[in-house]
Amino acid sequence: MNQLKRLMLPVVFCCSMPAQAETPLGQRLATQGDPNRGIPACSSCHGPEGSGNEAIGSARLAGQSTLYLQRQIENFRDGRRANPLMRPWAEQLTPAERVAVSDYYAALAPVGQTTTPTSAPNPAIGTDLALFGDWPDRKLPSCIQCHGPSGQGVGANFPALAGQPYSYLLNQLTAWAQGTRSGDPLGMMQHVASRLTEDEMRSVAAYFAAQLVASTPEGIALNAPDETSPGAALESLPAPSPTSTGLQSEHIPNQDDIPAGRAPDTQGYFKPPSRHDRPEGPFGEMVALGEAIFTQTDTHPESAPHVGNGLTCRNCHLDAGRLANAAPMWAAWVSYPAYRAKSNRVDTLTSRLQGCFSYSMNAQDSVSGIPPDADSKTIVALLSYVYWLATGAPTGDRSIPGRGFSDIEEPAEGYDAKRGATLYRQNCAICHGARGAGTRKDDIPIFPPLWGPKSYNWGAGMHALNTAAAFIRHNMPLGGSIELTDQDAWDLSAFINSQERPQDPRFTGDLAETAQRYHGGRYDLYGTPSPLDGHRLGEGTPATTSGPRPH
Amino acid sequence: MNQLKRLMLPVVFCCSMPAQAETPLGQRLATQGDPNRGIPACSSCHGPEGSGNEAIGSARLAGQSTLYLQRQIENFRDGRRANPLMRPWAEQLTPAERVAVSDYYAALAPVGQTTTPTSAPNPAIGTDLALFGDWPDRKLPSCIQCHGPSGQGVGANFPALAGQPYSYLLNQLTAWAQGTRSGDPLGMMQHVASRLTEDEMRSVAAYFAAQLVASTPEGIALNAPDETSPGAALESLPAPSPTSTGLQSEHIPNQDDIPAGRAPDTQGYFKPPSRHDRPEGPFGEMVALGEAIFTQTDTHPESAPHVGNGLTCRNCHLDAGRLANAAPMWAAWVSYPAYRAKSNRVDTLTSRLQGCFSYSMNAQDSVSGIPPDADSKTIVALLSYVYWLATGAPTGDRSIPGRGFSDIEEPAEGYDAKRGATLYRQNCAICHGARGAGTRKDDIPIFPPLWGPKSYNWGAGMHALNTAAAFIRHNMPLGGSIELTDQDAWDLSAFINSQERPQDPRFTGDLAETAQRYHGGRYDLYGTPSPLDGHRLGEGTPATTSGPRPH
Repeated sequence: MNQLKRLMLPVVFCCSMPAQAETPLGQRLATQGDPNRGIPACSSCHGPEGSGNEAIGSARLAGQSTLYLQRQIENFRDGRRANPLMRPWAEQLTPAERVAVSDYYAALAPVGQTTTPTSAPNPAIGTDLALFGDWPDRKLPSCIQCHGPSGQGVGANFPALAGQPYSYLLNQLTAWAQGTRSGDPLGMMQHVASRLTEDEMRSVAAYFAAQLVASTPEGIALNAPDETSPGAALESLPAPSPTSTGLQSEHIPNQDDIPAGRAPDTQGYFKPPSRHDRPEGPFGEMVALGEAIFTQTDTHPESAPHVGNGLTCRNCHLDAGRLANAAPMWAAWVSYPAYRAKSNRVDTLTSRLQGCFSYSMNAQDSVSGIPPDADSKTIVALLSYVYWLATGAPTGDRSIPGRGFSDIEEPAEGYDAKRGATLYRQNCAICHGARGAGTRKDDIPIFPPLWGPKSYNWGAGMHALNTAAAFIRHNMPLGGSIELTDQDAWDLSAFINSQERPQDPRFTGDLAETAQRYHGGRYDLYGTPSPLDGHRLGEGTPATTSGPRPH
Repeated sequence: MNQLKRLMLPVVFCCSMPAQAETPLGQRLATQGDPNRGIPACSSCHGPEGSGNEAIGSARLAGQSTLYLQRQIENFRDGRRANPLMRPWAEQLTPAERVAVSDYYAALAPVGQTTTPTSAPNPAIGTDLALFGDWPDRKLPSCIQCHGPSGQGVGANFPALAGQPYSYLLNQLTAWAQGTRSGDPLGMMQHVASRLTEDEMRSVAAYFAAQLVASTPEGIALNAPDETSPGAALESLPAPSPTSTGLQSEHIPNQDDIPAGRAPDTQGYFKPPSRHDRPEGPFGEMVALGEAIFTQTDTHPESAPHVGNGLTCRNCHLDAGRLANAAPMWAAWVSYPAYRAKSNRVDTLTSRLQGCFSYSMNAQDSVSGIPPDADSKTIVALLSYVYWLATGAPTGDRSIPGRGFSDIEEPAEGYDAKRGATLYRQNCAICHGARGAGTRKDDIPIFPPLWGPKSYNWGAGMHALNTAAAFIRHNMPLGGSIELTDQDAWDLSAFINSQERPQDPRFTGDLAETAQRYHGGRYDLYGTPSPLDGHRLGEGTPATTSGPRPH
């Protein structure tokens, strides 16, 4: 027995500790390259920890999505990323090697740069573009809209920006703008970068370069060491105060300083006050709370107990409720109270907000099971935020341009859900997922679920074909890198709204009765056979996660 | 025994049924006059039922206040009413006869004219002046503001107008305007009539002449046979619709037709939409309900359970919330949500309205004991009404002219509650009563209680000296027939707010503690010795009806 044990030990040792020659393929390529084939080690440019190098403009690779990295290797091979160093390297790798080296870096704990770039011309501009974009004037969504609230990266399509070398980020923006980098989904980044000035590119690159990254159990957190909740990262992103952003004004406004009557924006729409003009004091704090709830409805501690799915207010009300033709909240403020046929009563904005919780955010499946009370902190904060957004808008102006989603006509040839399915795969699945389940990162919702148990329910306004078509036509994809036709928008709406979703909270227990009582009209498919599979819409169980139930 | 009975009968008969010669004095003068002294019977001109006579322009006397009638006899004697027929008659009456004949007519059931005058040039103008006045432009309160919601007459100072002969009413308005009638309290009617055109006089006279009167257990009801509740009379007075008022427009607006941006009124203040432009449909009905609750808060079935005193919204917010410098509600709409030190929170307009119920309308003594819920019909209706009043006002404009009560400075020499007491007796007691208890008629509040158990409580804004002074200075007496100085207003405010009123609902059980926690500053007398009698204000029991408790 002793003899036997002694004999076995080396075998066990041999299996559990491979010799250096058997370093895994990815690690070997990363740290040693393959000198025999003239392949350099990645680490020679990207650093031993894969954190990139400011001096030579190399990227941080550690912690990036493996699919993203594999795709970039392909882009280098194909010339969609023009890079004389990377192309020959990429051309030499076998498919297995591409996967292996990508897997290696994806699994590395991300460590960002520690040097602060000195060439940022205007920190305020960088912060604004990163966190808020320039949506009304240039249709520029914020960077964090897709790359995650900390710039931590989201899935295969939206790489991590936080802690990338400044020089790398600036080079990439320049490359997008000049057309020497492409291959991004829907040409989004080419579109965005081409709208930025050089100063803006430098500023926004500096913003993300300065975000330290640290590995946490939940993922990559923003540079906020005392904030442990992932949601707190976004919550800690208030409008930069004038002093911290370098704006010229020394004056910090209070509520009584807000000017009445506002100039329209460059598109002729009402222009809400700048985030930089948020008043100080308790009212300003309530406005900030309202904005935080509006943008993080399903994770914010005040509102989360009333959200039963994966949606936030800002999913439909883009640019945090500011954007014309995306149901801007300044238009809602001046439009209520009003009678609505849907509720068959006069709704106040309070009851409208409660309705959003009941339907669009499916409160019936939330922790509390109900929308927030009319005098709850959540409602008071949302009202304060929305009221402030409407500063200067004329009370009662229900025809204010840009209100709601600005309906588009149904095409003469109607609409086709199956054609919509193809369009969806091509254009929408990148963000919303092939099964419409949306994308979350670090338990923060990034892209909303469009159907299934975590989407809006059958009582929400968005389930009406005309409403969703208008939203899609005006607002999708974010930033408008491609323009959908009216026909596209109707087809997509029909596809999305032919899928199962949570039950209408007014459900009487009988589908036909519920359909008769609360639904109807040519743009409401509830209770009718799905054009996709013929099952009666509304019959799917709310717990179904995989789209429509076969019927 | 039988003999005795027979003997007694004539005696009993004699006492209980006086001979015709012993008709009561008042009745005799009214129906027979005193031929021996050349005094004609009143009925020869005023009709056998005292209902007046259109052909000769004599007044309806039946049902008028006896004090009012006695005062008119004196006015005829003294020439304050120039009348060649009435003067010699009045001069002949002894003091006892004046009382007797006045008592006789006051006790008669009022019966109005049945003839409809044909000379009313514009019914819409008459209705408007009678029910709403022309407050913003000419400081003309409505007639019913003082004469009661049916024109039924209120106390000794405001005679019945309903069912008076048209010719009589027109003659009186003309006499006020020309100065041939005077003797009215504070010169109110002279002031009002001098601002009316001849057409307006004819129109408003026609309005009241056409109001039939009928005796009911509750008093005199408006011509609304199927409305039995006294409160329903006022409730049944909606804004006349364009078709019924003879306005030129055939177009009945709905909510989406309300023009945004409104021209200011002739004083430069924001001008809310005309009552004639109220939208149709369910929203318009909700606006109408809100206006009804606003103007009849303590009697309307929706709101009455939350009113613990004798106040209505319109008591402080004059002209049904429309009047600048009387806390107009259009200014309130655009000013909330906002932080308030009083509540140490961000108040929405909903919580402000609830605060009015808690403090100004003393909900703690109401049937429910609490203000209406945030999503109650009362609040939704009030919000709808207020929102509509603000049509076109710029959201967030907290400096909109006329907002609140437009503070006035404390006079350099301070203020004096005892001087205020004298001013009060001279100017205010006419309407608000010598003990500040206000005036009700047919259980409808006409003039609000200013102190005592049915007034606003110690938590209401009006208990602050500067607030009440500003209200008084800008708005009292109604119509502005006399102009108070800043000093007058401060003295009156000090007098009124040195009186006892219902306890602050935030009362902790300890006066000093409550004062320390919720009160203070030089304009808040709560917890300090009353300048009138030295007792500590706030110590009076809420049930005290007779002003401050001796201490």
